[in-house]
Amino acid sequence: MSPASLKLLLSAHALRTWGPRIEAAVPAGSLSFVTAEDARAASEPCDADIAFMTREVTGRSSKDNSTPELQGFDAVMRAAPRLKWVQIHPAGAERPIYRELRSRGVKVTTASGATAVTVAHSVLGAVIALNRRFPLLADAQRRHAWEPRLAERSPRDLKGQHAVIVGMGPIGLNIAALLQVLGMISTGVRRSAEPVPPFEKVIPYQSLPEVLPGADWLILCCPASPLTRGIANANVFSALPDGAHLVNVSRGEIAVEKDVIAALAGGKLGGAYLDVFEKEPLDPGSPLWDMPNVIVSPHTASHSLGQNDAIFDIFLDNLSRFRAGLKLRNDVDDLG
Amino acid sequence: MSPASLKLLLSAHALRTWGPRIEAAVPAGSLSFVTAEDARAASEPCDADIAFMTREVTGRSSKDNSTPELQGFDAVMRAAPRLKWVQIHPAGAERPIYRELRSRGVKVTTASGATAVTVAHSVLGAVIALNRRFPLLADAQRRHAWEPRLAERSPRDLKGQHAVIVGMGPIGLNIAALLQVLGMISTGVRRSAEPVPPFEKVIPYQSLPEVLPGADWLILCCPASPLTRGIANANVFSALPDGAHLVNVSRGEIAVEKDVIAALAGGKLGGAYLDVFEKEPLDPGSPLWDMPNVIVSPHTASHSLGQNDAIFDIFLDNLSRFRAGLKLRNDVDDLG
Repeated sequence: MSPASLKLLLSAHALRTWGPRIEAAVPAGSLSFVTAEDARAASEPCDADIAFMTREVTGRSSKDNSTPELQGFDAVMRAAPRLKWVQIHPAGAERPIYRELRSRGVKVTTASGATAVTVAHSVLGAVIALNRRFPLLADAQRRHAWEPRLAERSPRDLKGQHAVIVGMGPIGLNIAALLQVLGMISTGVRRSAEPVPPFEKVIPYQSLPEVLPGADWLILCCPASPLTRGIANANVFSALPDGAHLVNVSRGEIAVEKDVIAALAGGKLGGAYLDVFEKEPLDPGSPLWDMPNVIVSPHTASHSLGQNDAIFDIFLDNLSRFRAGLKLRNDVDDLG
Repeated sequence: MSPASLKLLLSAHALRTWGPRIEAAVPAGSLSFVTAEDARAASEPCDADIAFMTREVTGRSSKDNSTPELQGFDAVMRAAPRLKWVQIHPAGAERPIYRELRSRGVKVTTASGATAVTVAHSVLGAVIALNRRFPLLADAQRRHAWEPRLAERSPRDLKGQHAVIVGMGPIGLNIAALLQVLGMISTGVRRSAEPVPPFEKVIPYQSLPEVLPGADWLILCCPASPLTRGIANANVFSALPDGAHLVNVSRGEIAVEKDVIAALAGGKLGGAYLDVFEKEPLDPGSPLWDMPNVIVSPHTASHSLGQNDAIFDIFLDNLSRFRAGLKLRNDVDDLG
């Protein structure tokens, strides 16, 4: 192996899936592979320069329940002295291992953007499903009952409804663009208040209370930070009009779950699409599972076959940047 | 009452809801009301010139089960010798009474177009819900089971998927425009093959078999006619790729229901959103109620609060046309 050669750590599954395409993207001999499975079995610490952590490594884990596969991959990275860069598949890098790696100078890059279109499609479907009362129709369907939504039980038209979208990354921007096609109006919420189309208005986090009385939808798609943790709480829900809807595709800790449950039980919230929870998997005893017009989505809004391609494209782009000594895309240190 | 004065038949509910706005739209004294309830109780035939049949009159009926309220309204119209025009609320005028009225020269106008945006939103929600496997997630939710869609169970991205949309009235056009925003491609199917954006291609009904092998979605939103009845049948389903999806928001008789059931049971169809059925209400013993990834929607895709306003706007427009002796909008005789 030449001194300029790089070693890439990845799962055996990822090697089978992506290996040939990675090899085809770099000069012959400039990159070699080590699987996490082999690295765990070896007696020496792993000498990988780069790690590519693909979805199937973390996929069956949740934030409160790591599989042995994920624990093994983490252990290999922890003990790899030459590791300089880890490409991960989610849009956010909250797992403690990433902070730990960054503290010793390892670059961690996310796949922010790769999930945006898929998550925005899920949110669009969720908004229509909640508005059209699909969960209530599904309940009638289970009972073989023909219960059309008539007269005052007819849904309100989405046209003209107002969505407050907390978080204006690629996901928030995509959601706003899609809702606009339905004739909906969006206010964006983030750190600073510069105007960004297609948001009709952009406000800073601290101004959130001002727009809540006119909000039909509260959509959470922000990163987890001290500014956003717990931002959707009892005070916020009580400022919404009765029957407003909540969508959370950010992180469970952005919404105070007991307050979400109380607002749904009390009728303040008319429905919710929840893809993330304070503890995942959601406790089988949680009242959320059985609440009417609530869609419990098991942290799956971003999953799609093509999205794995989009993540891979970000990895390949970053691989060529890394080899050229250029700045990496979606570096967590830059995203703040 | 002056000789130019018109009498309008409508339900007591419609009189309460719309009466003041109708009166405000015409010169004082030029129009009077008679409720269907009063007309049924009267000993003389009703002397109405116009009838406005609003949704709540038919709403609790289905095509195979008329309520006494609907039967009463029909009986009043049948016996009204001066009746010249009936405005109805649906997009289609299939009920036999309308043929009967037309055969004696009564104009029947539909609310085609009023439902288009709402139905298209329902279809967009249905396409995303079926693609993202919302019915299967709902089933897991009922079991309090955390079952994310991972790896090969991840949904295919909607971008690039191909929808064959049978029927290119206002509903079909709206659906094609919305699906385009998701990156989907639509082929339109109707009587003649002139190009119409945003359809990538337009074909006549008889060419349907040619496009089926490349279709991910078969969406039915055509009027019922000899050309379209039974158009979605076993032959058509067998020509689709495995796992294609069916959406029916037209009329139940456009799809052969036993063939739909067989195609779902055999895995040829990967899911369906069915808003209409051969018999309505759907038989409680139908296997459709319990099929996976099937959404049974009780002929409710078009219902919305604002849609009643849109229907009313068509009525008011036609009322001013009628008073001026102009051609009516959405005349069934013109729609062919």
